[in-house]
Amino acid sequence: MTKLEKYFPAMAWLKGYSREDMQTDAMASLIATILLIPQSMGYALLAGLPAVVGLYAGIIPAILYSLFGTSRTLAVGPVAITSMMTATIAMPFALPGSENYAAIAMMLAFLSGVFLILMSLLKMGFLSNLLSHPVISGFISASAILIAVGQFKHLIGVQAHGNNLIELAKSMMLHSKDINLPTVILSAISITLLILLKRYLTPVLSKLGLAKNTASMLGKAGPVIVVVATTSCVAVFSLDSLGIKIVGDISNSLPTIPFENFTLDTMIDLLPGAFLISIVGFVGSVSVAQSFAAKRKQDINPNQELVGLGLANLAAAFSASFPVTGGFSRSVVNVSAGAKTPMTGILTGLLMLITLLFFTPLFYYLPTAVLASSITISILQLIDFKDFLRLYRFSKQEALGLLATFFVVLFIGMETGIIVGVSLSLLFFLWHTSHPHIAVVGRLPGTEHFRNVNRFDVETDPEIVTIRIDENLFFANARVLEDYVLTLISRHKDIKHLILMCNAVNMIDASALDSLETIDDRLKSAGVMLHFSEIKGPVMDKLTDSSLIENLSGQVFLTQHQAIKALTIKQADA
Amino acid sequence: MTKLEKYFPAMAWLKGYSREDMQTDAMASLIATILLIPQSMGYALLAGLPAVVGLYAGIIPAILYSLFGTSRTLAVGPVAITSMMTATIAMPFALPGSENYAAIAMMLAFLSGVFLILMSLLKMGFLSNLLSHPVISGFISASAILIAVGQFKHLIGVQAHGNNLIELAKSMMLHSKDINLPTVILSAISITLLILLKRYLTPVLSKLGLAKNTASMLGKAGPVIVVVATTSCVAVFSLDSLGIKIVGDISNSLPTIPFENFTLDTMIDLLPGAFLISIVGFVGSVSVAQSFAAKRKQDINPNQELVGLGLANLAAAFSASFPVTGGFSRSVVNVSAGAKTPMTGILTGLLMLITLLFFTPLFYYLPTAVLASSITISILQLIDFKDFLRLYRFSKQEALGLLATFFVVLFIGMETGIIVGVSLSLLFFLWHTSHPHIAVVGRLPGTEHFRNVNRFDVETDPEIVTIRIDENLFFANARVLEDYVLTLISRHKDIKHLILMCNAVNMIDASALDSLETIDDRLKSAGVMLHFSEIKGPVMDKLTDSSLIENLSGQVFLTQHQAIKALTIKQADA
Repeated sequence: MTKLEKYFPAMAWLKGYSREDMQTDAMASLIATILLIPQSMGYALLAGLPAVVGLYAGIIPAILYSLFGTSRTLAVGPVAITSMMTATIAMPFALPGSENYAAIAMMLAFLSGVFLILMSLLKMGFLSNLLSHPVISGFISASAILIAVGQFKHLIGVQAHGNNLIELAKSMMLHSKDINLPTVILSAISITLLILLKRYLTPVLSKLGLAKNTASMLGKAGPVIVVVATTSCVAVFSLDSLGIKIVGDISNSLPTIPFENFTLDTMIDLLPGAFLISIVGFVGSVSVAQSFAAKRKQDINPNQELVGLGLANLAAAFSASFPVTGGFSRSVVNVSAGAKTPMTGILTGLLMLITLLFFTPLFYYLPTAVLASSITISILQLIDFKDFLRLYRFSKQEALGLLATFFVVLFIGMETGIIVGVSLSLLFFLWHTSHPHIAVVGRLPGTEHFRNVNRFDVETDPEIVTIRIDENLFFANARVLEDYVLTLISRHKDIKHLILMCNAVNMIDASALDSLETIDDRLKSAGVMLHFSEIKGPVMDKLTDSSLIENLSGQVFLTQHQAIKALTIKQADA
Repeated sequence: MTKLEKYFPAMAWLKGYSREDMQTDAMASLIATILLIPQSMGYALLAGLPAVVGLYAGIIPAILYSLFGTSRTLAVGPVAITSMMTATIAMPFALPGSENYAAIAMMLAFLSGVFLILMSLLKMGFLSNLLSHPVISGFISASAILIAVGQFKHLIGVQAHGNNLIELAKSMMLHSKDINLPTVILSAISITLLILLKRYLTPVLSKLGLAKNTASMLGKAGPVIVVVATTSCVAVFSLDSLGIKIVGDISNSLPTIPFENFTLDTMIDLLPGAFLISIVGFVGSVSVAQSFAAKRKQDINPNQELVGLGLANLAAAFSASFPVTGGFSRSVVNVSAGAKTPMTGILTGLLMLITLLFFTPLFYYLPTAVLASSITISILQLIDFKDFLRLYRFSKQEALGLLATFFVVLFIGMETGIIVGVSLSLLFFLWHTSHPHIAVVGRLPGTEHFRNVNRFDVETDPEIVTIRIDENLFFANARVLEDYVLTLISRHKDIKHLILMCNAVNMIDASALDSLETIDDRLKSAGVMLHFSEIKGPVMDKLTDSSLIENLSGQVFLTQHQAIKALTIKQADA
């Protein structure tokens, strides 16, 4: 890999790019664009922005990611979770629909772009690992419910806002008298159609004799069919006069950016929210990218992904849109449309631009209730109760973490939910590592193997006791070992030698070193010698020059067997 | 150990308590009381409270700890760090000297008592482990400097307050014109005397023919000598008329508690500070208790310590005093006075009470500058720059944590300092575990041992690759393994079997399980089988029923040797 390829990954595929590749990619991007337009508009509505903003977000951001990202198949643009997060974070600052609200969405995109690039420069991508499986699972299920409930207002044609379930429900109750019956009927029809098409379109097309791939791809066109059908109906029968909300006039000009609404104070207030969007977006995007890459034995570089997504978000900000990231459903569309290289992303971006410039009048009569129906159907699949049950069987503690995240997101808010979830994950992990498994071991007769005295019938010596610690030694458990050893010594007054067997210790930090020195000191004053066995190379490298080893009352043995042999002889001599 | 002994540890020593024990303990407590009186008064001044409050804190709290704590030698009462913390936390709420300030100190004691007992009930004592070595070291050095600087106002006879170095310095500059020359001279004499007595009293007494133990004990009486000498001088020559501040009238009545100043709102505001005091106090106390217990092969039960210290703090609150904990210098006094059992603590408490009731007039002319000198001398020993150098050699990262804690405590505040330090410790630990050591291993020729291919000349097979992960698998590094494996697979297209050797994996959480399933899925679609070897018992117990093992493409082998043998045969057959 050349240096140029490292910083500009597009070089890797551009240099071998052929005319045939271009043909495949051009066809794929045409299909992807058609499928992505209603999705992008829907997500813009979800973010509390005009539908057209969804198109803005799919142009330059998608092109930049294709040039600077490392995935061959990931499609970048607005996705459900980050759109929802944008709405939740922006809502307390401005009224959806206002120019100030739009400016806040742009600032969020700008700041999360900055965060992503900073994380790349500081190699801090590992911070995203803090979002453990239970936290992500609880967060996504709760967000999906919030999104679905949030879309409900579009389905019944009322105004409602809220950061959590209670606020949303209250707001909806307040407006319940405004329910628009034609909108409700339209939504019901759309949802039914969407479900039916999703389930039966592919099999029916297959039965009609279409090739499997073609059938499967056309099968994904359900939302497009529903959009075209309902838009035509509304247009022909002027259903908008019955109170059905439509997308309406979309200016076909390029966006303008209200720089006068960008203030440093607001930016500072938006920092935590933007950080959360960038982390959640990054985690989601990388896992989608990896799942596609693995199937093709391709490689994803998470640090370069930070750059690609960061640039995409900066571009989103300067496209007057809102935070973007790599999405599963966008990428599925891309892949099943036959995308071969990131060129599809570039071409899709250009086709979006053409749509924006010339074809927006086609969307004039598109009912927002239909966009909402489509989003609701796709989002409800993200609610995963089985995962909770599976987790509950595996670990009650982690299942509790999932539940806590889920309910806090649902009833208090997304940011608090993530903070509670991450804190619980850390707390449980610390609890676990600070209650390490420690075993007194003895030799299996006739072997060089040493096993737990409580599980095996092993040989022991009252004067030479070996302890195996099954955990890294660091601040969270340093004093636990201290307690354990000192209690052991106070109960077995015969002990002359204590061996710490360290084959499962992968790190020792200063706090643990401190505790080990304390243990050594206290054993010394109790007349017991402290020895070590089977310390791993990297750990020993760090200990070599330490005062622990310099002042150690006993010895460091390479293997446990050598330790017992040497000390038994010593005892016999004494 | 009987159940009664578990909840009432005093039973353990009370049942064998003899008349001789009582004689030794009575003598020890008499000496300890004389030595502790000036110390306790000094700490009360440090906490911003009247000197007499230090005596209150040494009565019932000391007695309760002696009955409910598990250490035989620990002395509980006011100590430097928690007194300093009390001042820092209470200062923003009320003016030192006011009745409201005293009420806040009591509420802090009450709340930290509640926290300690709650931690005991919830078995959350492990939370104190979060205070890693670098955090404690940085915190104590910075606090010692703050305490010394804070005492400076008493040494020069001015008024000054502040939460950090800058505030203290500013405040002192403001009052610099009030410097009282006689006070400065008195302080200089006291400090010189204290240093000389500390260094030369014991050797001189030894040379004069005193027994070593007696000489060493009397050697600790330096502060008492200085107190008696200076108090007499001030009384005889009426030096207080020159502006030297004296302790003055101490009401010899028992304290009254200003319940009317206890409000729920203030208590809620004090929660974080009280939590910090209880954690810092607990950590300090337990480590002192353990260092004494180990020398005598005695046992400390940290959970029961929480109860003992919790009750002591509740008692401190209802004695109209301030937070207490087990202290090193108090305990040294106790031990060198010849204390045999916790009875010394009980008797010292009773003697304090007698002092309070009958002997307070003796302290009328005691100059506060002398108390401050004594505290300054003892506190400066806690500043430990060598520890920083030692840590720096061991781990640059941890040394940075120490520095950050130190400077934030010094220039911003104690609470922020602790929070920054703990966050950095966690961050560094997560950074470390999320960059685990992963090695591709091969067989050392002619053995059953498998070692790193980069360090040893080992046998490998291009189709069967073994990876050893030297770390627990959990959320912070789950995706790292995913990246590593997928990158490996994308670079070595010959691989047919991948073995994960898990001898250093002590835990697998749900996030890691998830990643392992993802790895298995992706390897499957790349035509590679995934196997495990040397999974530990407790880890295997958790995995047995999981979908990972159910759906695993490969097998789970007990040892790495068996895995290679079986797979090599399989490959040969294929």
